[in-house]
Amino acid sequence: MAQQTLPATGREWHLAARPSGWPTPEDFALVEAPVSAPGAGQIVVRNEFLSVDPYMRGRMNDVKSYVPPFRLGAVMDGGAVGRVVASEAEGFAVGDAVLHGLGWREYATLDAAKAVKVDDSLPLQAYLGVLGMTGLTAYAGLLEVGSFKEGEAVFVSGAAGAVGSMVGQIAKLRGASLVVGSAGSPEKVRKLVDEFGFDAAFDYKAGPVAEQLAKAAPEGIDVYFDNVGGEHLEAAIGALTLRGRAVLCGAIAQYNEAGAPVGPRNLALAIGKRLRLEGMLVGDHYALQPAFAAEVGGWLREGRLHVEETVVDGFEHSVDAFIGMLRGANTGKMLVRVEG
Amino acid sequence: MAQQTLPATGREWHLAARPSGWPTPEDFALVEAPVSAPGAGQIVVRNEFLSVDPYMRGRMNDVKSYVPPFRLGAVMDGGAVGRVVASEAEGFAVGDAVLHGLGWREYATLDAAKAVKVDDSLPLQAYLGVLGMTGLTAYAGLLEVGSFKEGEAVFVSGAAGAVGSMVGQIAKLRGASLVVGSAGSPEKVRKLVDEFGFDAAFDYKAGPVAEQLAKAAPEGIDVYFDNVGGEHLEAAIGALTLRGRAVLCGAIAQYNEAGAPVGPRNLALAIGKRLRLEGMLVGDHYALQPAFAAEVGGWLREGRLHVEETVVDGFEHSVDAFIGMLRGANTGKMLVRVEG
Repeated sequence: MAQQTLPATGREWHLAARPSGWPTPEDFALVEAPVSAPGAGQIVVRNEFLSVDPYMRGRMNDVKSYVPPFRLGAVMDGGAVGRVVASEAEGFAVGDAVLHGLGWREYATLDAAKAVKVDDSLPLQAYLGVLGMTGLTAYAGLLEVGSFKEGEAVFVSGAAGAVGSMVGQIAKLRGASLVVGSAGSPEKVRKLVDEFGFDAAFDYKAGPVAEQLAKAAPEGIDVYFDNVGGEHLEAAIGALTLRGRAVLCGAIAQYNEAGAPVGPRNLALAIGKRLRLEGMLVGDHYALQPAFAAEVGGWLREGRLHVEETVVDGFEHSVDAFIGMLRGANTGKMLVRVEG
Repeated sequence: MAQQTLPATGREWHLAARPSGWPTPEDFALVEAPVSAPGAGQIVVRNEFLSVDPYMRGRMNDVKSYVPPFRLGAVMDGGAVGRVVASEAEGFAVGDAVLHGLGWREYATLDAAKAVKVDDSLPLQAYLGVLGMTGLTAYAGLLEVGSFKEGEAVFVSGAAGAVGSMVGQIAKLRGASLVVGSAGSPEKVRKLVDEFGFDAAFDYKAGPVAEQLAKAAPEGIDVYFDNVGGEHLEAAIGALTLRGRAVLCGAIAQYNEAGAPVGPRNLALAIGKRLRLEGMLVGDHYALQPAFAAEVGGWLREGRLHVEETVVDGFEHSVDAFIGMLRGANTGKMLVRVEG
């Protein structure tokens, strides 16, 4: 089958040490590794964009979790899109655009069965964001786990992030009465209102979350989409109305704390208010994928979604992009463009 | 209609002061008050048993909650059973046994529409416990809120209490693979295993809850029925398996703390394990009443339920019974027999 001349080697990012607390560049190693020729049924992909995501921080710890930990001395896998440069697989031609899970490397050799061909009339990086896992996380979390209904009020933390900014927009497009977001800088707050169309937003660093939330949503909230945990979750439990729901999607505020995090001290309010708090992982919601792709793809083509990406140029800056994302340097989806 | 000679006065317990922390006898006042003759459609009930319940502690605080606070200088209402001694209401005759909500008094004059006639071939006090709100709380909480299914492992805190002992028994009768309870004394622990049929039980005062729970349920639990909050809830979050559920029914460990309670520091585990935590009040589940009465009433008549009551004799000891219940002096439902 088709084949281009493959380079002998490509660069990969390996996990060099397990961080305690915030990761540092020393926890990673940039390694030159051989590029394998494709076996039967395999393809070689030259990656164009890599995804860096909060859940990856969890995989750096050596603890049993919903995804296995990264192995020391091995590649940091993750979502990536690129184009086929060699193929020994039926139905995959050189030049095809594909989405796959072998990120953090320039070239990936993999079974074609583990790659998905994507329509390249949309920008490829959309498949790592708004049309990918982050979009589906927002869609499934808000609608399925959070049981959001038209006319309800929604609060999202980490709202300027990839998932958060989609949650707010889906809520608005689905008829929310009020959408409030929190983020970590005045510039992000401005963007939430001016560009993502949130009704209100606040900077959680500017004052107690509970007070700012009460000001933004004086009649309370019906759904809270939690990307951060900690103080935000406690404030949301206080603000949720009768039979309110909290979607527990992330706890980025806690991922890098070496000490024990603080739990919501007001959880007993859940009894009288009959609150429901429910954890979610996107992997449980693939059945929604067709409905999601149709509805969100439609919004995207109609220009009704504001999509922001923070693109870091150059494979050698992947670690900077990852650490920056953990510290909130991004607006919208954080991506690495492999060829800087 | 029928009427006996009514006494001029009867005794009532009033709320005299709002406690901060644990209630003391000084927060209550025993008052001699006139017994009203029944108006049209009304009955007068001579109470035989009064219920004292954890939720009443919450009503002593002047805070908006799911039930309005008790008023200062007014009677502490609550569940009671007794017999009609005067009736101006169709369908209610002197001698009828009734269940109603005007407890903490010897005589209650009320609209017959607010009383329920009960079958006195069963002991009247069953309607305050196993066949009443506490039984329905256990039944609805385990089966509806907790989505318990045959073959699952269940952990109950406050297991020797009225609700907790029913939760464990319903779980066993419905085919649980394992039922573990915690309680606050070695004697209660013994009773849970020997008399209520729990598979395992431990004394939460004898060591860390998480360690004792791990020993009793080494493969984890599927449903946690929470009557206490605090350390128990945190331990349960740690022990819950994938898609486990926590039914938040009570937080007795926190009711009397003047300081802020501690929230579960490990709540972020709910994300990866997709846990669901949900608050409940029995009032949302009255639709289950017929199924509950049929199933639990059947078990009761067949002698398949072990029912324990702690009966305090004498209306004048109602406050002692209430405070004793809050401190864990009871096994099973705590009741006051009005005529000591």
